[in-house]
Amino acid sequence: MPTGNITVLGLGAMGSAVAARLRATGYATTVWNRTAAKTQPHTAAGSNAAATVPDAVDAGDIVIVVLLDHRSVREHLEPAADRLRGKVVVNLTTTTPGEARATAAWAADHGIAYLDGAVMAVPSMIGTPEARLLYSGDENAYAIAEPALAALGGAEYSGADAGLASLKDTALLAAMDLMLLGQLQAVAMMRTVGVPAAETAGEAEAWLAAMLPHGKEIAAIIDGGAYDTGGQSVDFDRRGLASIVTASREQGVSAQLLEPHLRLLDELSATGRGASDWPRIIDRLTIPKQESR
Amino acid sequence: MPTGNITVLGLGAMGSAVAARLRATGYATTVWNRTAAKTQPHTAAGSNAAATVPDAVDAGDIVIVVLLDHRSVREHLEPAADRLRGKVVVNLTTTTPGEARATAAWAADHGIAYLDGAVMAVPSMIGTPEARLLYSGDENAYAIAEPALAALGGAEYSGADAGLASLKDTALLAAMDLMLLGQLQAVAMMRTVGVPAAETAGEAEAWLAAMLPHGKEIAAIIDGGAYDTGGQSVDFDRRGLASIVTASREQGVSAQLLEPHLRLLDELSATGRGASDWPRIIDRLTIPKQESR
Repeated sequence: MPTGNITVLGLGAMGSAVAARLRATGYATTVWNRTAAKTQPHTAAGSNAAATVPDAVDAGDIVIVVLLDHRSVREHLEPAADRLRGKVVVNLTTTTPGEARATAAWAADHGIAYLDGAVMAVPSMIGTPEARLLYSGDENAYAIAEPALAALGGAEYSGADAGLASLKDTALLAAMDLMLLGQLQAVAMMRTVGVPAAETAGEAEAWLAAMLPHGKEIAAIIDGGAYDTGGQSVDFDRRGLASIVTASREQGVSAQLLEPHLRLLDELSATGRGASDWPRIIDRLTIPKQESR
Repeated sequence: MPTGNITVLGLGAMGSAVAARLRATGYATTVWNRTAAKTQPHTAAGSNAAATVPDAVDAGDIVIVVLLDHRSVREHLEPAADRLRGKVVVNLTTTTPGEARATAAWAADHGIAYLDGAVMAVPSMIGTPEARLLYSGDENAYAIAEPALAALGGAEYSGADAGLASLKDTALLAAMDLMLLGQLQAVAMMRTVGVPAAETAGEAEAWLAAMLPHGKEIAAIIDGGAYDTGGQSVDFDRRGLASIVTASREQGVSAQLLEPHLRLLDELSATGRGASDWPRIIDRLTIPKQESR
């Protein structure tokens, strides 16, 4: 039976799954939710409920925060800052790297050991090895919280910069988003000749699985930095992509998802870099400092 | 030893690989190339060379065309139309579905059995099971050519519409393009904190392999057509994607590759479909008839 009292702030789908899993693992849990009615199934199952955030914070050695967004995190934690001093706060709320860093700075100012987390899982996966949870921030806080966090799923500590967990999470989600959009584009094109989406998705899944390892070759070119390996050039890729765009439009399907890629290639070609390896477009994704937001 | 005479028009990298493989399999081959010097290694290895396209056509029962583009195909085949009558033409030149259909219509007008092909392989893969070649068009032409085509790699016949092979090829390439761009976006975001591209690509490869099967769930929603399964909604996806876009920009990385997706979600939300399943964006990829090009 694990020792330690854990407080869970926020009982949405993810917060509820986290509280239930910690309770099932044997932790003494205290829950708080803005709408108190949501605590009922948890108290019925053996958790304590707190009426206010400061009361909930007092009951836990580790405080796990699973609220709606960054704004609600700050709104609920700031009034409890004194009560949080010396405790470990693990923030699983979905935030951006910048938001995570801002909360980490606020926590440091108040003597709170802060760990930011990113949950790469849906609530039903919590507690299974398929759930992947990334953490970054105070290394000592991670050491203290690790036994409890291990109960939630596979735990990975990314480093002391509190923004890292969220950054890695959003970077991988960006990759997934574009992969799924690629399948959607293929489905849209094949639907025009009556091929069901399921058939195209099955074909695309096998094809993409076979093509996935090319990512490492592209990465090697990027890490090399010279873009002169003599592989597929910007101009070669432009012609190929232009064919795909034309094919899509011929079938009455918009190519708007592909157009940013074509634009990046056009820009490189227009500035005399048509013979470079095509992955050089990554340099055009970097926003010059004065324009960055 | 296979019987039959095969003509190969065009000795670029792909045409040369095709001619060499057919010769190695035991076919009597005749080659032609616009620049005659390129026939030399082939005649040295046992092929015949023809000085003109009509002469090359006369020597073959099956004529395989591997030229630069659609324009060069038509330029070289049209003057030989009478000599091609009754023969099987297999066009492996990279073309769009519309170009393939145009050449098929021209061939039908001249009594030529026309098959359009799409090569999903690089030249070095020709003759291995890894090479995948799609064909569409005249079914009888496919039956005649199949033994020879089987020597080039895995052969798949998609149907009588000559545009199908090219359509399926470009649809799968579109999916691959966006998947590789997704990895590039992740690499660009993680580079900002000093993570090498190779490390991010390795992480992304494992993550995307695990996420690939979600494509089939999305396809089932699209084939269902109601977009009311209660899964991830347009508005849910918008918030998630907005976080990714913000995270990217915070790190000084452009989110332009992701912006078309966000725009499609915004359009659905603005027209009262924020509660629909997010794959409903596929309907906005269909170009209304009067706008299609």
